[in-house]
Amino acid sequence: MLSVPTNSVSGINAFMPPRRTLMGPGPSDVYPEVLAAQARPTIGHLDPLFVAMMDELKSLIQYAFQTNNEMTLAVSAPGSAGMETCFVNLVEPGEKVIVCRNGVFGERMRQNVERVGATAVVVDNEWGEPVSVSAVEAALNANPDAKFLAFVHAETSTGALSDAKSLCALAQQHDCISIVDAVTSLGGVELRVDEWGIDAIYSGSQKCLSCVPGISPVSFSAKAVEKIKSRKTPVQSWFLDQTLVMGYWGNKDTGAKRSYHHTAPVNALYALHESLRLLANEGLENAWKRHQDMHQILRDGLEQLGLTFVVDETCRLPQLNAVYIPEGVDDAAVRQQLLNTYNLEIGAGLGALAGKAWRIGLMGFGARRENVALCLRALDEVLN
Amino acid sequence: MLSVPTNSVSGINAFMPPRRTLMGPGPSDVYPEVLAAQARPTIGHLDPLFVAMMDELKSLIQYAFQTNNEMTLAVSAPGSAGMETCFVNLVEPGEKVIVCRNGVFGERMRQNVERVGATAVVVDNEWGEPVSVSAVEAALNANPDAKFLAFVHAETSTGALSDAKSLCALAQQHDCISIVDAVTSLGGVELRVDEWGIDAIYSGSQKCLSCVPGISPVSFSAKAVEKIKSRKTPVQSWFLDQTLVMGYWGNKDTGAKRSYHHTAPVNALYALHESLRLLANEGLENAWKRHQDMHQILRDGLEQLGLTFVVDETCRLPQLNAVYIPEGVDDAAVRQQLLNTYNLEIGAGLGALAGKAWRIGLMGFGARRENVALCLRALDEVLN
Repeated sequence: MLSVPTNSVSGINAFMPPRRTLMGPGPSDVYPEVLAAQARPTIGHLDPLFVAMMDELKSLIQYAFQTNNEMTLAVSAPGSAGMETCFVNLVEPGEKVIVCRNGVFGERMRQNVERVGATAVVVDNEWGEPVSVSAVEAALNANPDAKFLAFVHAETSTGALSDAKSLCALAQQHDCISIVDAVTSLGGVELRVDEWGIDAIYSGSQKCLSCVPGISPVSFSAKAVEKIKSRKTPVQSWFLDQTLVMGYWGNKDTGAKRSYHHTAPVNALYALHESLRLLANEGLENAWKRHQDMHQILRDGLEQLGLTFVVDETCRLPQLNAVYIPEGVDDAAVRQQLLNTYNLEIGAGLGALAGKAWRIGLMGFGARRENVALCLRALDEVLN
Repeated sequence: MLSVPTNSVSGINAFMPPRRTLMGPGPSDVYPEVLAAQARPTIGHLDPLFVAMMDELKSLIQYAFQTNNEMTLAVSAPGSAGMETCFVNLVEPGEKVIVCRNGVFGERMRQNVERVGATAVVVDNEWGEPVSVSAVEAALNANPDAKFLAFVHAETSTGALSDAKSLCALAQQHDCISIVDAVTSLGGVELRVDEWGIDAIYSGSQKCLSCVPGISPVSFSAKAVEKIKSRKTPVQSWFLDQTLVMGYWGNKDTGAKRSYHHTAPVNALYALHESLRLLANEGLENAWKRHQDMHQILRDGLEQLGLTFVVDETCRLPQLNAVYIPEGVDDAAVRQQLLNTYNLEIGAGLGALAGKAWRIGLMGFGARRENVALCLRALDEVLN
């Protein structure tokens, strides 16, 4: 006898999602090749063929990040867990972190710092603005005991791009370890981990990589690895402890051999492998250019519709277009009509921009002329 | 100019995994229907149709666990993260937890307890033995200040089944919250969360549910929810903080509405939905019986081959058959031959059983006559 009887769920049918065009802040449209890769037969996470695939995957992540960092891998969980991986491994209780906050994800970084028992010194910028390099310099000067500088490269909540190169140079001058959120930037705009001296970086699978959501590529510089190795306290998370995880991914720095840590999300890693392979086939610089080209066409069209951008052109992300909702227009009704009539998803505003802006994504496989055309025509029909 | 040039990865081809028969400790053979479900188009994690799918998924998880717990959901990461979800949300620094250790996963529980700054009182049993109910009773009597009892229902490292019903009854008598690892038990052997009074439970997608790896179903009783709500300290993990996650999954207890927390692993949740639907179509009790039936046929065959079981018949898991490697037999060579010649994966020993035992899984879709026959015949050919 079952206390929750079988007939309580026997009416549930197989879930058949509609075909949407995803132009929100992510997940983005997934490459058909990635969906197909993911559906290939599951093999064991210690199978020699799977381990060889992981070696390729590591090279592909290194390419996308433009780094030779040995400690480069995919966290078996979404970008939020990638963020947490960086903070819990690097930052110890009582240490000081300069955290730049110009949107939702900078604030989330601050919460991560607090949850490891460290101190966050917050550098605030208005939503929609990039991180102020001069304000960060002032904060670094005022806090010589700060050990980290953390900022978001591409703020998904506003569409603002910050100057990661200058910020990381400042961090180096002040002997700080830089922690960079590249969830929305990776694959969509210029990003050069080694050249810019980024120490710790995380991203997500579901933005400009156009992979299924759920995986977070991360990379740590030699300096960051040194910091992890010299910790005085254990990493508070067992699941995210990189000294254990690298035992599975293999690491020449630590000399670790493949050993069981947790069961890898096998099929999701097939998907990430395929999406990064497609990125490499296109070429990283070509992908950056494509995002910019598509953005310009979208921008012209949106401006013709009378919509204005939240972010100034000088620091605007091509892949995340936040525009103000015109006065008198019903936010939810428009998005619902786009979804129901055109199978088109655009994003709502988040945090300070909730109800005030829409976020239109042009990410990865989604950054195509047909998507731009659909979006512009559908918005035109719904708004006018 | 790219510092990591495109041609460094341009030789990487699409990954084409072989078709294995997975009879290790997990991942298990995935249902073809689940692979197909996972390959359906990605839609937004806030899409009304996706949210409706999540409501169904919650009902399906409740059915599999046999619980009406409102706080029932899928953690967006593997079973190890499900374990950590239970410990970081429930246990506060300085609290005392009775941890039963009869294999790798009990030890991992102890490490989780230590990493939240709590005190673990370990009740040890030999590897291959179940948790001793009388030893736990003695520990509870000796530690009246203990607030939790944590144990593994089905030890994946040995194949031993513990008496969850009696252990949870003891926990209730001592006003302790029970935390139960059901990674390998869910769907394979009798498990009744509400009837047995289990307070917190986690599982994995890749064992007897025959779903792709990477997702962890969890459930918390009203008593556990009360404990989480009355915490004096914040949950140390932002990503796993259930008070935040439930804002996305929706919870009548907390009155929380759907709001963004992290991007759900959309396609992996399609997969879990489908695997649980297949379980419900079969019926939970029929699935339990099928695992037992297949085990008996496998057991007879293995014993005919002269192999002996690590675990006594009275507490042996049908889905995880640990047998001693015969003297003089090369562990790795046999497993390699099974893999290369027969595309058959069986598991190596783990921890104290490394090099001493094989672990043969009969999990979910893998618990079929054809798999039993293949395994027995291939072992016979390789060993004789």
